[in-house]
Parts: sequence; structure tokens; C-alpha cells
Amino acid sequence: MIAVARFTPAIEITDAADPRIAEFTGIRERDLTGRHGQFIAEGTVVISMLAKAHRAGGAVSAEKLLILKNRQAGLEEILAQFPEDIPVYIAEAAVLDAIAGFHLHRGVLALGSRRSPPSPETLIGGLGAQSLVLVGCGISNHDNVGSLFRNAAGFRADAVLLDETCCDPLYRKALRVSVGSVLTTPYARAGSADGLLRTLAEQNFEIWALSPAGTIEIGDIEPARRVALVMGTEGEGLPASILSRFKSARIAQAPDLDSLNVGTASGIALHAISRAMGRLA
Amino acid sequence: MIAVARFTPAIEITDAADPRIAEFTGIRERDLTGRHGQFIAEGTVVISMLAKAHRAGGAVSAEKLLILKNRQAGLEEILAQFPEDIPVYIAEAAVLDAIAGFHLHRGVLALGSRRSPPSPETLIGGLGAQSLVLVGCGISNHDNVGSLFRNAAGFRADAVLLDETCCDPLYRKALRVSVGSVLTTPYARAGSADGLLRTLAEQNFEIWALSPAGTIEIGDIEPARRVALVMGTEGEGLPASILSRFKSARIAQAPDLDSLNVGTASGIALHAISRAMGRLA
Repeated sequence: MIAVARFTPAIEITDAADPRIAEFTGIRERDLTGRHGQFIAEGTVVISMLAKAHRAGGAVSAEKLLILKNRQAGLEEILAQFPEDIPVYIAEAAVLDAIAGFHLHRGVLALGSRRSPPSPETLIGGLGAQSLVLVGCGISNHDNVGSLFRNAAGFRADAVLLDETCCDPLYRKALRVSVGSVLTTPYARAGSADGLLRTLAEQNFEIWALSPAGTIEIGDIEPARRVALVMGTEGEGLPASILSRFKSARIAQAPDLDSLNVGTASGIALHAISRAMGRLA
Repeated sequence: MIAVARFTPAIEITDAADPRIAEFTGIRERDLTGRHGQFIAEGTVVISMLAKAHRAGGAVSAEKLLILKNRQAGLEEILAQFPEDIPVYIAEAAVLDAIAGFHLHRGVLALGSRRSPPSPETLIGGLGAQSLVLVGCGISNHDNVGSLFRNAAGFRADAVLLDETCCDPLYRKALRVSVGSVLTTPYARAGSADGLLRTLAEQNFEIWALSPAGTIEIGDIEPARRVALVMGTEGEGLPASILSRFKSARIAQAPDLDSLNVGTASGIALHAISRAMGRLA
């Protein structure tokens, strides 16, 4: 049988103010405001993840695509991953850049939406007897939130919990840095760090707060069957109230330097814990 | 004795085209071109590292500073770290943004210069009997090069070697992501990856190429007294010619996902190796 490429009836946009692509206008600035469940996916890898999530029919769905006209032919394989009722808009580079508000190297955008994440209690309640959860407290940098998700997926954490002061992982930049893992990793984002950790402790999670002042080196911990790894911000780290109440681990490093990047630190800690739990090949 | 703050005779710039601050104009675009040994340092942490390197009198020196007028008072402590013959220019936000070509959140810039890095042979020749070296091959992303240096410093590597296809670690963004470690970590950037590895092998370095297809998990290696850890690009990784000639290590992770961010991967591998070498507390 000869494979027939899906015919993509793309709609050309010639006016940056066209209402059909209004959701894509000024997306750099709009990263700073909420979007009521809608998000912008950028780049082929993230958009493939969006197509996969859409087809799986869960909390995430795709709404429309906007791509650079001269990339259309090369993207046919990715476009074919979306159902035919998802409109594909194309535009010349100058129009696309005028819509987005900056120069789009990648030239491929999608608008998606997702249902509100579950409450932390619901998410935690659904986890198995052997579970690994990554908790972020006060992670307001988009790159760092994206890194947390990329590493959570890479090291087989079951869920990510973010307190209400963390930024939204669906922000374009966070989503891109996560390489789309935000769309596939269960997460909740609500409440205070104290509240999240209390709920986890009640559900028999062993809580490890990561800090340069931690008592045990991360490579030496012998994890329980249910583990929550807690990360704070790069500058101030976790508050003393958390460090004093729970077990704490450190990543051995040179003294007198700024602590590690929080994304890198999460990768080192997740690798060590997940491996010690027997989750990695 | 009452401490007296250093009097900083700052010079106000009111015209973005003033030749005295010409090196700071359009710095975002200039990241793409060479600067003949000059570099732009950004933010208080990096600029403190520059002051330290300048005072130490090595390969790095400071030439001038350009700061936001209304931050001058708050930055007095950092300005005092520079000798009085380093001129300090100040400008209002609108002028400063016009000079830089984009909005400068941090509002503090410095121009530095550094002598050409040593040849790889010279650098390797000066290393001790117990040494750890990080090698980057084809790392063209500024953030990733910066991360390599931050992690090399954090995990006590003695030097960083970059092949000629890596981007310049003195680029503003790379320097910033390194948190200034580029200014304090010995490095060389020249020649091919093959040439660098040949030189290291001749000097009795055990060479570990990091790859998702590596034969040994990074936590299981028993490092020699001289170790070189080799990192490739995120997408394509290290070429088969390198993987087949040297020992290879992998970071255990979930299958079917994009490999880790190269900065994160370097952090995990350096932490494991440096710890196994007994270099970390």
C-alpha cells in the first residue's frame, strides 16, 4: 500500500491582526499573564507531544496551529499527527513575526488548552504504594520550572507538585524547556508548601528537603517506598521552617560558590533517588 | 574606625552614541560576533567575580562599568571592589536601554578583557597527578556552555576544554549562566575533539564519553587518578568515532524520552565522578 500524506488544507494569514490567530499575538508579553487554561506550544518536539496528548484524549487538547509558510512541506509529518478538524494557519515570516511580537526561529506554534490540574490531595491520593514525587517551592523562573518537569519525566517521578508561588508550567518558555514533559507528567499547583508537605506526610511520604546545608549527601540516602523530594529557589533556598521539620539532603560541592542551578540540582537528586529506589535501568 | 565608602566619581552618559561607552552598544546582537578578547559581564554576581579576577592580576582584567543611575547608591559595595582607575559610567534607564538595545533588568554591566586562553597542550601539561577535566564537543548553545562552567566549578573540575566548534564562553549569556565561573576556571578552546582527546590520552587521562548508549552507569564507574569527562551536543550527541575509541558512561533514565539537557547531564556526571575521586566533602 502506498502511504498517502494527509492533505492539510492550510489557511493563509496575511494580516497580523486577523482574529482567527488572535491567541498568538504578543506571546512574549502574554507569558506574564494568565491564559485561563490555554497555552502556546512552540517547536516540533513540544508540538508532537501536544498531538500525542490530544490523541490520548486526557486533560490536554490542541486547538489550532500556526506555522511559517515555507516550513509547511517539511512539517507534513507532524501536522499529520493532528486530527483534520484542527485548523492549520500559515503565514510568511514577516507576518508571523508581527503576530508573535518577536522573531520566531522555529516557525511552528500551536494553541492548546488543558483542564485545570487536580487538587494536590486528589493527585496524591491516586499515587501508588511505591511513588516518587518532586515538589517545587517558590520556583518562579520559567526555565527552572521547565527543567523540573524535564528531569521528573527523565527520572521517572510519578508527579510534580508546585506550591501556589511557583510560575505556571504551561507558560511558553517553561513548556519549551520541559521539552513538552509538562503535557505528560501529572502535576498539581496550589496551596502553600507547608500544606503540600503536610498532605504528603499524612500519606506516608518520606520527605527530603534539598539544601546546601542538608545533613546527608544525596548519594547516601536510602529512600523509603514513597518519597517526596523538595526543591526551593536558587537564591534563598527552602525556608528554615521546612528544613527543621523534615529530613534534609545536600549535594556535595565546592565550598564558597553559589549553589547549583535548581534544574541541575533536581536532576542530580532525582537521578540518585530514583536509582536507589530501583526505578532506573 | 568608621568605614568610609569609596567615593565613586561616576560619569553620566546622556547620549546612547557617546563613544566612551561604545563597547556596550547593541550587546545582544554582538553576542553573535567575536570581540577580540573583550567581553561583557552582566549582573552583580558576575561583576563581583570580575573584580576579584582583576585584583588577582591574572588573565582577566576589568576596563569600565556602566550602570543604571538609580542603582548607583545600592551598588557602592560592588563598585568599591574595583580600583579607582576603572571608570564608572551611569545612565538613566532609557539611555541605558538604548545603548544595550534591549531592556536591562539588572542595570549593571562591565567591560572586561582577557588574554587569549592557553593552548590545550599547555593547559593539560600544567595539570596535577590527580585531575578532573570536563571536555565539551560541539556545544554551540550559550546557556549550555555556561552551565558546563558552573558545574565544573561547583564540582571541582580542574579545567574545561572546548573544541573549536563550541561557542565562546565569554559571550555575555554564557558568562551570566556560568555565574562568572568562566572567569575563574582554567580553560582552553581550540582544535578538534579528536585532537583534544588524543592529547589527553597521551597524558594518561582516562577518557569517559557520556552518551545515552554508554556501557556503564555513571554511578558505577571507578575513576582513575586523571579523568576526562566528554560531553557532546544535546541532539546528536558524541560521534561514533569517539564512542568507539574510549570508555563510555550513561546516565540511567526513562526510555523513549529526549536525552537530558547537556548542562544537567554534566552536573550529574561531574557530581558522580568527583565524588568517586574523593574530591567533594
